[in-house]
Amino acid sequence: MTSDAAPSFPTSLGTSAGTSITLLGRDLARDLMGQVGFGELAYWLITLERPTPQQARLFEAVLLGLADHGFTPTAIAARLTYLSAPDAIQGALAAGLLGGGSRFLGVTEDTGRFLAGVLASAGRPPGGEAGWDALAEKAVADRAAAGRLVPGLGHPVHKDGDPRTPRIIAIAHEEGLYGPHLALFEAVGRVHPKVLGKRLPLNGAGVSGAALADLGLPLELLRGVVLLARCAGLLGQIAEEIRRPIANEIYMTVDRNAQYVPPEG
Amino acid sequence: MTSDAAPSFPTSLGTSAGTSITLLGRDLARDLMGQVGFGELAYWLITLERPTPQQARLFEAVLLGLADHGFTPTAIAARLTYLSAPDAIQGALAAGLLGGGSRFLGVTEDTGRFLAGVLASAGRPPGGEAGWDALAEKAVADRAAAGRLVPGLGHPVHKDGDPRTPRIIAIAHEEGLYGPHLALFEAVGRVHPKVLGKRLPLNGAGVSGAALADLGLPLELLRGVVLLARCAGLLGQIAEEIRRPIANEIYMTVDRNAQYVPPEG
Amino acid sequence: MTSDAAPSFPTSLGTSAGTSITLLGRDLARDLMGQVGFGELAYWLITLERPTPQQARLFEAVLLGLADHGFTPTAIAARLTYLSAPDAIQGALAAGLLGGGSRFLGVTEDTGRFLAGVLASAGRPPGGEAGWDALAEKAVADRAAAGRLVPGLGHPVHKDGDPRTPRIIAIAHEEGLYGPHLALFEAVGRVHPKVLGKRLPLNGAGVSGAALADLGLPLELLRGVVLLARCAGLLGQIAEEIRRPIANEIYMTVDRNAQYVPPEG
Amino acid sequence: MTSDAAPSFPTSLGTSAGTSITLLGRDLARDLMGQVGFGELAYWLITLERPTPQQARLFEAVLLGLADHGFTPTAIAARLTYLSAPDAIQGALAAGLLGGGSRFLGVTEDTGRFLAGVLASAGRPPGGEAGWDALAEKAVADRAAAGRLVPGLGHPVHKDGDPRTPRIIAIAHEEGLYGPHLALFEAVGRVHPKVLGKRLPLNGAGVSGAALADLGLPLELLRGVVLLARCAGLLGQIAEEIRRPIANEIYMTVDRNAQYVPPEG
Repeated sequence: MTSDAAPSFPTSLGTSAGTSITLLGRDLARDLMGQVGFGELAYWLITLERPTPQQARLFEAVLLGLADHGFTPTAIAARLTYLSAPDAIQGALAAGLLGGGSRFLGVTEDTGRFLAGVLASAGRPPGGEAGWDALAEKAVADRAAAGRLVPGLGHPVHKDGDPRTPRIIAIAHEEGLYGPHLALFEAVGRVHPKVLGKRLPLNGAGVSGAALADLGLPLELLRGVVLLARCAGLLGQIAEEIRRPIANEIYMTVDRNAQYVPPEG
Repeated sequence: MTSDAAPSFPTSLGTSAGTSITLLGRDLARDLMGQVGFGELAYWLITLERPTPQQARLFEAVLLGLADHGFTPTAIAARLTYLSAPDAIQGALAAGLLGGGSRFLGVTEDTGRFLAGVLASAGRPPGGEAGWDALAEKAVADRAAAGRLVPGLGHPVHKDGDPRTPRIIAIAHEEGLYGPHLALFEAVGRVHPKVLGKRLPLNGAGVSGAALADLGLPLELLRGVVLLARCAGLLGQIAEEIRRPIANEIYMTVDRNAQYVPPEG
Repeated sequence: MTSDAAPSFPTSLGTSAGTSITLLGRDLARDLMGQVGFGELAYWLITLERPTPQQARLFEAVLLGLADHGFTPTAIAARLTYLSAPDAIQGALAAGLLGGGSRFLGVTEDTGRFLAGVLASAGRPPGGEAGWDALAEKAVADRAAAGRLVPGLGHPVHKDGDPRTPRIIAIAHEEGLYGPHLALFEAVGRVHPKVLGKRLPLNGAGVSGAALADLGLPLELLRGVVLLARCAGLLGQIAEEIRRPIANEIYMTVDRNAQYVPPEG
Repeated sequence: MTSDAAPSFPTSLGTSAGTSITLLGRDLARDLMGQVGFGELAYWLITLERPTPQQARLFEAVLLGLADHGFTPTAIAARLTYLSAPDAIQGALAAGLLGGGSRFLGVTEDTGRFLAGVLASAGRPPGGEAGWDALAEKAVADRAAAGRLVPGLGHPVHKDGDPRTPRIIAIAHEEGLYGPHLALFEAVGRVHPKVLGKRLPLNGAGVSGAALADLGLPLELLRGVVLLARCAGLLGQIAEEIRRPIANEIYMTVDRNAQYVPPEG
């Protein structure tokens, strides 16, 4: 703790020396490049464990489902920032990612944490669908009693079902990776109408959180996984903005329709 | 241009309606999730063309080579931001990406633009190694005469050769994707000592720019590709910061060794 | 809600037309520039009310107290980002602001919200120091019982007193702006040792939150006020980085002292 | 350069110890808070010299002129980011600042650099209006010959004159701070129609760059000064977004008017 002691900064990620580069304990050029996929590497960087092909497939399916949702506020913010500062594409990407907060991109992590919390409080997972339903019903009821929404339920567009949800569940089954978080999430889908009095769809962001939690990814990084997926989508948005610009027309649409209201009003 | 005309915002990326989601003209859940890799999707989003397996392999090899370089300034900035604002992981990722400017992460795009510019001015590509060498020699000499560095040449650590460079070139050959940008880049590697009077390594960032240009990616998005790669690396850095924090020790190291200098000094 | 209706975007801030520019309902060039200070304008923009000279003085004193704290994690992140991307100073400023999260820069807003919440639950403010002390004691005890820290209490360096605290209180008295939030904050300072068993200083970030709340600023913008103050400080840090760079040495210090730990470790 | 030598990080900004805090060599609480304005402090942090009242007035007039321009792309990006992530106001501010690039917010610095470059190449400043006009005419002609725009000329709205321009010039005269950059800028305004064949207004961003350069601020920080001004404006935009939200309507307007174009199209 004195200023004489040289500090030490441990890491298990990248190092380099002379003619070699090591990443995750492997020779980057020889063992990783050309042999490992990008999604696979992202999983490995986050968990320090190389995913099995099964884990990589589920993980990448989640990334694909979250990459782009059209003209979201974050996509628009990235395009407007690119319009203003085309010389600094990093700023446009960063501006897009900064919308990754509680409202639109937080559902994945919120759902993962919610499910993990219920499972932790339950001790060991219940056996059988009836057991899952009972656990889910109590969790939904507790949440409702606290006046809080159940994360992963509901969608502004896909009111009759988000097509990503059954797809993620099917892939998890195919790959032998269907675990307690997905089981509980499906039970929430079955029982919530009884508690809440209305049927809501299990959304794609929520099922993604359940699947990532079943994969064992750290809960505090689930939003980070969404942001990685979104980074690819934002790159697509910026590429399209370059090919066929719309940001200036968005700006003009807002500016043209501005209506001045006196401060006292 | 009047305020009555409803604006129209064209896009070829994501759209959704009722129970379907379309991305890049495909059914997201049925045709993409579980069937397309994440690197593949990123390529597709940028170019609007699905990469062949060969293109995807080269593209992902480039992403792997650029994902993480240990304790770079951007990795440290992301960790310090996470330390300050752990509740907003999007801010830590964004802060890390914002270092993606001219100095450290710009080499890939600079090299791609440099090579493409030389090729464009040359008209049709030369035949044979001697032809490439002549073209490269002129390009290096012009650059040197203008007092500018040749992008893609030199590395602070890998003075005797960056191991990523031969690897990218080998993969491009294996996949039938070795094109004029890589050929010119290799020629730069052969001839520059004659012009500059010293031998410098062809670095990994530079060869990545050449390979991405040969893949046909838009030059103005090459830095964006580097940022996508780096996004995965930054997620790894933040995951490690959570597991084994060092940002506070970095902060303390700087603060402990601060030396006050009067403003007049 | 149909796509035919032209949208309307109301605003009371800036508008312009032909040869005039209006800001906050005033002629920008004639009525504001050269007549209104920058801190004064910031207050006006946030509240839509022009501050009195007294309000402006207290507000600016708060901004000064929060502008720069030396080599904080956010200052270091801004400098490292400037090192990486000197061509995009907006990225360095943004990276610095992104550290304005819960841990280091959130105290001002947390304290304002805490005090406002206690006052709201108390109904009308108590009369006399004994009344304030009773209210504060209950609030501190409730907070401690919930296992939560009392915001605005404690400082890693200024253990025997943060010099900004008495200064802000004195200015508030001088300007006739000492209100219930500051009164409650001072009472917390008096009574907390009885509840917590140790004496902690009332810190400068906390007293700033109390003062801003007494000024009537919206609680959800208090962190924004801190960020504005910090923006000036970060500009100073970047100016110093240009004059006398240290970011590369920080980077080298971390890199030199990296210690590789196998991922399995 | 060995890992044993303790690094040293010099600074002239903030330091603190025990019960005192020093900023810019002054006692923060006693000598600065309550006595120095916020704009004054920003100037001091950037230059390490306390501005005279005259310098502070001109500097703050510039900040006021640049703080908010209504629904600019950056203001819209900040509002959309706040909509997405209201829990992280730092992200909304950062997103807004990230638009501070070459296109919209770069004019101030570009103009300052342009004028300073012309003055440097001219050796000593000319005497008399005719001398300034000759220098300006050559500079405009050189720029036009190189196919580059003259920074600070032209405005999309204020075609017949930007009201900020005469105001900044008048304040500079009033305060005895009218210098060679402003003189050259005014000469550009007089002579450019002869060279360019059309009359364009001297815009407010450009005159701000000239005034800041006359104040002696470092040219590489002029964009930073604009960003500080804009930070206050963005805070106003976010405050208004909280009071009377429009970001969701902007998002809906874009989304409603999306038009899907097949990728092949």
